[in-house]
Amino acid sequence: MKVIITGGAGFLGQRLAAALLQEQTLPFNELVLADIQQPQSPIDDPRVRCVALDLTEAGAANRLITSDCGVLFHLAAIVSSHAESDFDLGMRVNFDATQQLLEAARHNAPAMKFIFTSSLAVFGGALPAVVTDQCAVQPQSSYGAQKAMSELLINDYARKGYVDGRVLRLPTISVRPGKPNKAASSFASGIIREPLQGETSVCPVSPELALWVSSPSTVVRNFIHAATLPAQQFGQSRVVNLPGISVTVAEMLAALRAVGGEEVHARVSFAPDESINRIVASWPGKFDIQRALGLGFNVDHDFEQIIHAFIRDDMQQAGN
Amino acid sequence: MKVIITGGAGFLGQRLAAALLQEQTLPFNELVLADIQQPQSPIDDPRVRCVALDLTEAGAANRLITSDCGVLFHLAAIVSSHAESDFDLGMRVNFDATQQLLEAARHNAPAMKFIFTSSLAVFGGALPAVVTDQCAVQPQSSYGAQKAMSELLINDYARKGYVDGRVLRLPTISVRPGKPNKAASSFASGIIREPLQGETSVCPVSPELALWVSSPSTVVRNFIHAATLPAQQFGQSRVVNLPGISVTVAEMLAALRAVGGEEVHARVSFAPDESINRIVASWPGKFDIQRALGLGFNVDHDFEQIIHAFIRDDMQQAGN
Repeated sequence: MKVIITGGAGFLGQRLAAALLQEQTLPFNELVLADIQQPQSPIDDPRVRCVALDLTEAGAANRLITSDCGVLFHLAAIVSSHAESDFDLGMRVNFDATQQLLEAARHNAPAMKFIFTSSLAVFGGALPAVVTDQCAVQPQSSYGAQKAMSELLINDYARKGYVDGRVLRLPTISVRPGKPNKAASSFASGIIREPLQGETSVCPVSPELALWVSSPSTVVRNFIHAATLPAQQFGQSRVVNLPGISVTVAEMLAALRAVGGEEVHARVSFAPDESINRIVASWPGKFDIQRALGLGFNVDHDFEQIIHAFIRDDMQQAGN
Repeated sequence: MKVIITGGAGFLGQRLAAALLQEQTLPFNELVLADIQQPQSPIDDPRVRCVALDLTEAGAANRLITSDCGVLFHLAAIVSSHAESDFDLGMRVNFDATQQLLEAARHNAPAMKFIFTSSLAVFGGALPAVVTDQCAVQPQSSYGAQKAMSELLINDYARKGYVDGRVLRLPTISVRPGKPNKAASSFASGIIREPLQGETSVCPVSPELALWVSSPSTVVRNFIHAATLPAQQFGQSRVVNLPGISVTVAEMLAALRAVGGEEVHARVSFAPDESINRIVASWPGKFDIQRALGLGFNVDHDFEQIIHAFIRDDMQQAGN
């Protein structure tokens, strides 16, 4: 059985690959990391094959998904601010490529588990204090619209029996290691990561803004869990709002001070950026996670624990 | 200013064309009726141009939407049972063609009002007794999924300023004149139309099933109203659940008896059809129409009045 990760060169793709290679939860004999830039395997393992592939090219999805494919983790995407500034690229990657992967799965490997990473960015507009599964999506970004359209398509492919689709709406991931990216939520990692590494960081949103966040390791555990759940447990919708914790920016920074001290905390300043704020402030700050927990998905304990995990797993690994 | 109707050979397209030509509500100097089969104008008028056009063909949308186009009524669609039995055709017509029209509008006539006919079929799954604007869509048919995806795309095009999109979620239309079609809701007209015309009709769903219906003339008035509303009145969503009335099949048949008598009523029999019932029973039977009424959309009075209008407008016109 073959497992494929698109966006395999990305941060979450690499984390997921490492977890799949180290754990026995999801048995496989081949792990394909696909990305537009040549991926590297995070661990030297004969089961891994790395391919450079532009999923928007005609035939790419068909070459990738062969009949022996058991699970696809479709992580490849154009992130939120980038999809907002380049609408056409966002459509091609976030929607068209997803559609082509679904078509390839339908014709080549219909029993395949198609795990799709959606996002809380499908929500927006007037929202209740706590978002439930019954809450209408109303994306205020092209990224959110493209993800929401993909969700509908995957649900319909699953309903028709064309593919065993599962859609995970990811919280904002914090703390991401590495460099800032074009996600509107990039600051949610930057305001923790940079100060801990001795650098300053500018927060573009208000300290009162509530974010719905998950640590990278919890999200990776939830990816693997989604691939092992029996299909019938999902009921009438294959879409799950993944568990997160609700924290304001001020609470995140208080946790940073508690863990790293006053000097670290003082490296963060505020300078409102309306183009980022408009996107991020449209996202919900809290969800009802009863269904996700009932399905066995994991949740972080608190934000201090998330910071400690970042220091342990990412900073020490990077030699900081 | 040019007005275009796709699906212009269809029943609603013809009604809309006649209303636009007879009324002064929406001034124009050219009315284009486009359909895959050559349309005819319902009224002899020098402003009308009829074109046979397959919207799924490359370049078709670009030829249709020129810079002088002020309003597009995009009515062309593959109906529900047909889209369910031919998924690929449904995707091409209901989604891909809509996307190509949006792209043509964005590049050729971005100020154009893009009126899209969606449907209550976007809803399904666990629903509250009364569906509100905040209620999540969960289509249980490919038709519903394709409409819901188009809605998201139109909202995003409107948000980006690429086109002035307006989405109308139509109730089930009853009473349609003419012949049964491949819509799962075809019976909702057939159980009234056929008995009044001396024919028998078989109802495939339970008498207890509640339907959300609108008369053709009310829907046509609402199409025109949607094209005259200022954009800012829509607020954060361009999607409107059009007003309808909630009636059970039993209530529809009681109205038929009240209007047509016992002999007419006795021409309806029941024979459950699970493939139709599964689709129709997934649709909501009642909506909160406060927002639509606030925007000035119209609503029918009751189902007896709808039957009387059908007898007056359609049966006498057809010489019955």
